[in-house]
Amino acid sequence: MSETSTGQSPMSGAAQRSGQGARASRVSGTIRIVGAGLLGASIGHALSAKGIDVALADTSPAQLRLAVDYGAGRLAREDDVPSLVVVAVPPDVTAEVIEAELARFPDAVITDVASVKLEPYLALRARGVDLARYIGSHPLAGRERGGAISARADIFVGRPWVVCRDEETRPADLALVEGLALELGAMPIEMTPEEHDRSVALTSHVPQVVASLLAARLADADDGALRLTGQGLRDTTRIAASAPELWVQILGANAAPVVEILDALADDLTRVSDALRDPERSGARRTVAEAIRLGNEGVERLPGKHGQNRRFEQLVVMVDDTPGQLARLFGDLGELEVNVEDLRLEHSPGAQFGLAEISVAPSALRGAIEGLEARGWRIAGTTND
Amino acid sequence: MSETSTGQSPMSGAAQRSGQGARASRVSGTIRIVGAGLLGASIGHALSAKGIDVALADTSPAQLRLAVDYGAGRLAREDDVPSLVVVAVPPDVTAEVIEAELARFPDAVITDVASVKLEPYLALRARGVDLARYIGSHPLAGRERGGAISARADIFVGRPWVVCRDEETRPADLALVEGLALELGAMPIEMTPEEHDRSVALTSHVPQVVASLLAARLADADDGALRLTGQGLRDTTRIAASAPELWVQILGANAAPVVEILDALADDLTRVSDALRDPERSGARRTVAEAIRLGNEGVERLPGKHGQNRRFEQLVVMVDDTPGQLARLFGDLGELEVNVEDLRLEHSPGAQFGLAEISVAPSALRGAIEGLEARGWRIAGTTND
Repeated sequence: MSETSTGQSPMSGAAQRSGQGARASRVSGTIRIVGAGLLGASIGHALSAKGIDVALADTSPAQLRLAVDYGAGRLAREDDVPSLVVVAVPPDVTAEVIEAELARFPDAVITDVASVKLEPYLALRARGVDLARYIGSHPLAGRERGGAISARADIFVGRPWVVCRDEETRPADLALVEGLALELGAMPIEMTPEEHDRSVALTSHVPQVVASLLAARLADADDGALRLTGQGLRDTTRIAASAPELWVQILGANAAPVVEILDALADDLTRVSDALRDPERSGARRTVAEAIRLGNEGVERLPGKHGQNRRFEQLVVMVDDTPGQLARLFGDLGELEVNVEDLRLEHSPGAQFGLAEISVAPSALRGAIEGLEARGWRIAGTTND
Repeated sequence: MSETSTGQSPMSGAAQRSGQGARASRVSGTIRIVGAGLLGASIGHALSAKGIDVALADTSPAQLRLAVDYGAGRLAREDDVPSLVVVAVPPDVTAEVIEAELARFPDAVITDVASVKLEPYLALRARGVDLARYIGSHPLAGRERGGAISARADIFVGRPWVVCRDEETRPADLALVEGLALELGAMPIEMTPEEHDRSVALTSHVPQVVASLLAARLADADDGALRLTGQGLRDTTRIAASAPELWVQILGANAAPVVEILDALADDLTRVSDALRDPERSGARRTVAEAIRLGNEGVERLPGKHGQNRRFEQLVVMVDDTPGQLARLFGDLGELEVNVEDLRLEHSPGAQFGLAEISVAPSALRGAIEGLEARGWRIAGTTND
């Protein structure tokens, strides 16, 4: 499981653009990481691959041993003098670990990677802790499965990494934390803790609650109803597979902004529901249409590829369900000089083949369809995003 | 834009399994299709490609001309004597068109493809229409974009097609409608109108409302917040891009089952919100954990590939954003004899490359990782579904 970039890697160009070449690192000395779970171990893998000294600590000896065995760093020692401490522990113990690390390493900069930023900050302030050397941060990276076993060096590449400085923050300390983000290929974004927490309430925490509650409605649904599911329901409920333990902590620690949006959403649901109770009433259809239309507006604002709104055409190609078929398809697309902007493969339940939904630039759509059909592919449809 | 299967098609095996070979058709004579939009024209394309006589009618001369020009069938004539009439018009005029077709063609079986089944049935009953020759149906196929221009012969392949018969239905008539579904590659599923409407309320209509309302919250969100969006938010809001006009009709025509679930969801949201208002209160964390856990249960019930629950491992491969890279990747996977069960391509905002999430059988995961790494690919992670 080597993390080292090879000369033959097809990613070498992008990897260099994202700062993973052999040049001098933006961070140096010993980096101490407290918490060897998914995020901590992933940071350890990325820094260790660059030859940086990573000292790992974790209250779980098993987790710690796993992270070290997989190459995320070495065991922390009593005499370590880290330049930077990264606190990567569960939200409910983040504040106390930050306090302990600040006290233990009086010359180190301390950051954390918890997915809520205001609560630990206020908790530390309330205890009177001097926070001049603390800079909260949050890399928006992760996956549905956690632990050192799932850690990978590259999960931060191209992802936003929020950094929360305040008026006490020294520029050199800020540069160290931003350097950590850049070193791992992430994009540092400066926000206040309040801005961060309100933002992720909207973009991450509330969508999680909504997806979970929607999926929960399926838990005791008739088998017959579930036969009628399509990609829409699968998409809207995918993140409902996330771990309850972690989400109880995240939602509890960012309760106020989440509650505000949940209450507004419950009102929105009730408004649509009331309109549908008597769809012939004056104004009822307009209420429903307005909800769907405003949803159109919202989804169009989501950034897609290269930071821009997605404006691609889709074509759907039928693909036989055997090894090598996708290679043939993408080989043909390459020969046609069609750049695939995005794709999704859907298997029809019960069928021995799938549908590959391929996004291409609008200017490439006609050529792609004609070229693929000339090569014997069956185009099952075209759509807009 | 030929719909005809070629001998060289990589789909020929699957196409034959789904009944698209040169054998005798399950439907014969003239099939009349009223409404040349996405569904009507798609049915026309599929039947015409099999040499069946398709007579198209539409109140919009432009839409009708487009469908005929694209090969979905011929213009309907006064002297047509159809064996089967397919009503494929918007929900709000479905009942009156069914009534008119029943009266005009006393020897034909009449079906419709509207996405709600109870309201038109009750409306026809209330008008005293003899419904012995009417069999409602609903193919669960479509896309976010409508119209004859988006029609394709293959959109029904592998999809469920609900057929609603009652005690009056003659076996030969039922066989004709089920034969239509089978001829187009769909899977007929028998349900009552009530079962159908309750099922799609849960699996399609309520998810649409929820996705729209969630996306609507983004319409006036700060630009900063939108920089923090990830795949989770994109997935949960994708279907919010759907057309308001159509959804106002669908939701209005299936209001009662939709209202019931929306109200329950609003209660669920309020319960979680109340728990988060005081997360330290006894029982509050349990309420939140239970909501997420029940969501885990629900999402696990969703059918995936081949009608079974999805139980695949994912590996995430970094892919340079140039033509030919995906072909290389799938070429390598083919050589490694790894069957790709599912895949999703994600572009990191602002980055010049993407992440290909590839689903493989658990037994194939280790070989895929080692083989790809040996060929210079960078594995950005592995996850479970």
